[in-house]
Amino acid sequence: MERIDRARARKARVKEPRITLSHGAGGKATHNLIDAIFLDAFRNPELEQLSDAASVQVGSGSNQVRLAFTTDSYVVSPLFFPGGDIGELAINGTVNDLAMAGARPLVISAGFILEEGFPTDDLRRVVASMAAAAKAAGVQIVTGDTKVVQRGKGDGCYINTAGIGVRERPVELNAANATPGDVILVSGPIGDHGITVMLARGELDISADIVSDTAPLHGLTAALLDAAPATRMLRDATRGGVATILNEVAAASKTAIVVDENAVPVRPEVRGASELLGIDPLYVACEGRLVAVVPPEQADAALAALHGHPLGEGAAVIGRVVEDPPGLVLLKTTFGGTRIVDMLVGDPLPRIC
Amino acid sequence: MERIDRARARKARVKEPRITLSHGAGGKATHNLIDAIFLDAFRNPELEQLSDAASVQVGSGSNQVRLAFTTDSYVVSPLFFPGGDIGELAINGTVNDLAMAGARPLVISAGFILEEGFPTDDLRRVVASMAAAAKAAGVQIVTGDTKVVQRGKGDGCYINTAGIGVRERPVELNAANATPGDVILVSGPIGDHGITVMLARGELDISADIVSDTAPLHGLTAALLDAAPATRMLRDATRGGVATILNEVAAASKTAIVVDENAVPVRPEVRGASELLGIDPLYVACEGRLVAVVPPEQADAALAALHGHPLGEGAAVIGRVVEDPPGLVLLKTTFGGTRIVDMLVGDPLPRIC
Repeated sequence: MERIDRARARKARVKEPRITLSHGAGGKATHNLIDAIFLDAFRNPELEQLSDAASVQVGSGSNQVRLAFTTDSYVVSPLFFPGGDIGELAINGTVNDLAMAGARPLVISAGFILEEGFPTDDLRRVVASMAAAAKAAGVQIVTGDTKVVQRGKGDGCYINTAGIGVRERPVELNAANATPGDVILVSGPIGDHGITVMLARGELDISADIVSDTAPLHGLTAALLDAAPATRMLRDATRGGVATILNEVAAASKTAIVVDENAVPVRPEVRGASELLGIDPLYVACEGRLVAVVPPEQADAALAALHGHPLGEGAAVIGRVVEDPPGLVLLKTTFGGTRIVDMLVGDPLPRIC
Repeated sequence: MERIDRARARKARVKEPRITLSHGAGGKATHNLIDAIFLDAFRNPELEQLSDAASVQVGSGSNQVRLAFTTDSYVVSPLFFPGGDIGELAINGTVNDLAMAGARPLVISAGFILEEGFPTDDLRRVVASMAAAAKAAGVQIVTGDTKVVQRGKGDGCYINTAGIGVRERPVELNAANATPGDVILVSGPIGDHGITVMLARGELDISADIVSDTAPLHGLTAALLDAAPATRMLRDATRGGVATILNEVAAASKTAIVVDENAVPVRPEVRGASELLGIDPLYVACEGRLVAVVPPEQADAALAALHGHPLGEGAAVIGRVVEDPPGLVLLKTTFGGTRIVDMLVGDPLPRIC
């Protein structure tokens, strides 16, 4: 407990005089940047929850509607990779942030920052891919913006999407609700997206037969929440990977999380490439996998619901919430040991999304 | 009429094999890009209106709420300029897009794309400025995202904001509604923002005592719509300037617009700098000025309402909607002649917002 209280008592500060890649990696430096600069300036109860999507109440009296609102920018490099591209990622990522809030995705905005000289045909390809992904996810792209920057001031194409969803279910999803005894599930093998993008850069002399897991997860979350309405929390495991999410849960709920390394689904190709790259798959981004924290009495139903959906066929129980030591994530390793899984430090895989 | 019909009959096409700065200038090339690539792929009735903010209906039955939803990315260079900075621009710009839809701005998202090496203190300054602008405009920044790209793949700091507003007024604002006889108003002197940013780059040996006009216009639009509820259309004169907006109105409503050059408010400093730069102030971006098209019987009330608000003190009637020739904007010049004011071609002032 002392560990957390000390951290909270100390006001977050960004000591680095300049922004580094690790500030965008989704791990420790990102959290510090958010706490010390963004939260400090913008402070409001919605933002402070730091969930994937904010809750916005519109209308008044009996005429109230609960919305979810989210945004993400996409700077993935390369733009096209096995199994997807930046356009598909930009739609699925925002659909997933809404889905993780238990919302039904409705409309999406698209903001493009193009670099002078970007091939028009590549833009056509990205846009066609966004249109197909939007259609598949049942959302409409209703508003947009295009800016062009000079050569050398961008990298072909960056995309921002923001999205609005409707919170129709009476669920309350919040990392702070995790309780000792709860079960941790992932919806499928982890790390496919990050490793695929890393290998697609061609900088490494490794090839593997894997493709990105990018997918819209709103159908999967609907099935899961139908089966396990008491689900405590959902989060898609993007930047920072499963390890970072579990650390967020442990910190927010002041519990500990014990993960069984043997139970974590990882494809052999991803495990092999990760070993060669010196990265733990627990830190590698997915773009179509979720982590769910479910109370024990609904865990079987939750797992069955995931298994019953095409995007959850590889789902597995990977761990449990326990009491001590609060704020920590522990991994029971294949070899019988236990080690602390901290938040991601540095950025081993920059610009993965 | 033939001119428009021919243009519509011919499917829009982007012939350039690569994106150029003019595709981001807000003028002809931008419109062509939007028609040929974005609209063609994303086609839906909301997007086709190409208004500053999309209309989104949420809830069902008697429980419906009408929202406005908009997005813009900001790539202004330099980030700090007299009278404002990228942070203030990013909030005011999105507030204004909602205000032009007749909506009350509610919440905003903020997505940052930072370049590795960007000074942390500059980020603090930008964020403080966003917080102050949000407070001044009465909106909350409820969700956000930060990405970092390598040195040489960005330009310090790009910001995307998306915003949600509530459409509480029974107004129907649409450029297609402009009718012969309608009066065209601007809310103040035009071109201050564009010229200020251009001069702040220090590439030109000109200095002038002007500052950006960046401001949140939702209070001004509320006053205007209270006084002139039959207002046909509102648009803030950003990229492409007043000239581009008037061309959009003429094209959408199949009317002509006659502007009296003498009546267009332009500060002497802006006029002087524009002449030296070889730019017509009608094409120069503002970030705190609106163009309104108002039926003649409400024009006096509209002008009085603008004059009664601190941000509309310099408002003026600058022209009228007429029947012929449909689709064209004509300027009655100071010297008694008449010339066609076309959409902006090329990009004389790149990265002004």
